[in-house]
Amino acid sequence: MIAPSSHAPFDDYRGRRVLVTGGLGFIGSNLARRLVDLGAEVRILDALVAEMGGTLHNVDGFADRLAIRIADMREWDPTTLAVDGCDIIFNLAGQVSHIDSLRDPRGDLGINVDAQLQLLDVLRHHNPRARVVFTSTRHVYGRAQRVPVDETHPIHPPDVNAINKVTAEAYHRLYQEIFGIPSSILRLTNVYGPRQLIRHNRQGFIGWFVRLAMEDREIEVYGDGSQQRDLLFVDDAVEALLLVGLSEACVGRTLNVGGPEPIAHRDLVKRLIAAAGTGRARFVDWPADRKAIDVGSVWLDSTRLHEATGWQPRTSLDEGLARTVAYYRPRLAAYCAPAGAGEIELA
Amino acid sequence: MIAPSSHAPFDDYRGRRVLVTGGLGFIGSNLARRLVDLGAEVRILDALVAEMGGTLHNVDGFADRLAIRIADMREWDPTTLAVDGCDIIFNLAGQVSHIDSLRDPRGDLGINVDAQLQLLDVLRHHNPRARVVFTSTRHVYGRAQRVPVDETHPIHPPDVNAINKVTAEAYHRLYQEIFGIPSSILRLTNVYGPRQLIRHNRQGFIGWFVRLAMEDREIEVYGDGSQQRDLLFVDDAVEALLLVGLSEACVGRTLNVGGPEPIAHRDLVKRLIAAAGTGRARFVDWPADRKAIDVGSVWLDSTRLHEATGWQPRTSLDEGLARTVAYYRPRLAAYCAPAGAGEIELA
Repeated sequence: MIAPSSHAPFDDYRGRRVLVTGGLGFIGSNLARRLVDLGAEVRILDALVAEMGGTLHNVDGFADRLAIRIADMREWDPTTLAVDGCDIIFNLAGQVSHIDSLRDPRGDLGINVDAQLQLLDVLRHHNPRARVVFTSTRHVYGRAQRVPVDETHPIHPPDVNAINKVTAEAYHRLYQEIFGIPSSILRLTNVYGPRQLIRHNRQGFIGWFVRLAMEDREIEVYGDGSQQRDLLFVDDAVEALLLVGLSEACVGRTLNVGGPEPIAHRDLVKRLIAAAGTGRARFVDWPADRKAIDVGSVWLDSTRLHEATGWQPRTSLDEGLARTVAYYRPRLAAYCAPAGAGEIELA
Repeated sequence: MIAPSSHAPFDDYRGRRVLVTGGLGFIGSNLARRLVDLGAEVRILDALVAEMGGTLHNVDGFADRLAIRIADMREWDPTTLAVDGCDIIFNLAGQVSHIDSLRDPRGDLGINVDAQLQLLDVLRHHNPRARVVFTSTRHVYGRAQRVPVDETHPIHPPDVNAINKVTAEAYHRLYQEIFGIPSSILRLTNVYGPRQLIRHNRQGFIGWFVRLAMEDREIEVYGDGSQQRDLLFVDDAVEALLLVGLSEACVGRTLNVGGPEPIAHRDLVKRLIAAAGTGRARFVDWPADRKAIDVGSVWLDSTRLHEATGWQPRTSLDEGLARTVAYYRPRLAAYCAPAGAGEIELA
């Protein structure tokens, strides 16, 4: 299903010991599967926190080709074992819901800041030469003063989640400056595709919209749906991660990872309904809790990443949506079931 | 000992319910005592964490005119009780050692970020109209690109402590933006004076230098001692806090609080030795752990605060040092005793 890369000598991943934190989650599991295909020795560290999107369904058919450790990064011993001897760490573990970050701010802090600090401290003491790629978010910029937003745009985090991601970014930079741990920070735009959480509507709109369309339900578009976003298909996000993980030019840098082009919510919904063949749109007023943290139209300028690695998004929105729908079609029940249903018993 | 203010109608503090978090610490206790003298109804919330500087010695002779609650702000119930009905909250609780923040980064995170987030969340739910004054630090700027450093200077936190203070600042701004909690952020330079921790050398140099001079010991000056700082006497810092707590013009703003003038370390040591009448200087190479987070010469531009409130530092260095030495002279044993020695038994 994944086309071979035309970009890069991904052969360099063969035999490499690679850790993916949050590797049972959306982007993490897509990355881990790709790394397995590339011949890497892949480890996953994931806490499988309920409602976060991590699920063993995401490694169906691959679980025996990976080492999976279910543990919280705030625990010293399992984290030490996970990083031991690793060459590259794709550090994707995190809480991504902005809404949840205002309902339970200290919960977000624990996952997005405390656990990150622990991981870096474990690296400092046990593996300071490991190459780290940390995924942050476009959301740290807040409301755009200009579009597209490049990395020199001021930071104005509009919610607790964004503040916490800024903090984790700062830790990564500091631990490189003081302790020499080589890291890159990627600020990802809205990513979509197979293995995304579609069970509830608190992790951004797109996974939820996919589910509603596929279940032939009504999709609520807030306001007039004119707000624009650049949506990135997950395989393109994985490609960016793989390129950065091997790039010396990206060490110590913060780089945007944006989509192919901006699209208005209302147009996205139209094209999603076309891809699914079901669903319908309804325009509603903004709910107060969403409006309070909405940032209007925003999309990213990825020139820095392109110049450093040659990366660019290659999957059109229509192709990405078609592949997303095709993935979920036979798996809708599994991904929409209550958290934990059908999972392996772990405790 | 404290001269009456020539600045402001501090009469407005009479009868006000005022909470000082970290009120058993250095600046907090000086502020609390002043507030008591001004007729405020003063509460202190302090966790008395070992080695942080909080001590009941700091409220000697005043303890019966204050309500003291010994509790961690991360605990919901005592924090709720502490903020209940408060008009003004001087939010000074924190871990201030840069060195300790690199030895125990998650400990710093817990005190400087998690506890702050909890306090703001308690306010959001129980007292969103309370006026908050949060004390941050000059250290968030990192190495100065220009001096004096004003509030538009870029932020480049050089250690975990500074990153965590930046994060707590961001929470205060966010909770004002989203939940309407009116706050001001003060970035204080190095403050010195009575009731400062002088027991160990991990909370900045000046308290430690005072102790060494008064014990007629050798004061190690790193490098050639040419690095400059602006030192602010604690009564002037208290004056700034009091003015900002009543100032509408300061709501939603971040303001520097700097000293009267920059002075080189070597000159400071000379004048301290003169004030104490004892002690001597020795020039030594920079220890690696200090050098890694040293930021060179830096001092603050406090024009913004001056324009908003009329504040300016009024205590000269020589006067401040003389008053500091006079305070510690009869109390040196109490302030240098091992943590907890001579304290009231609290548990």
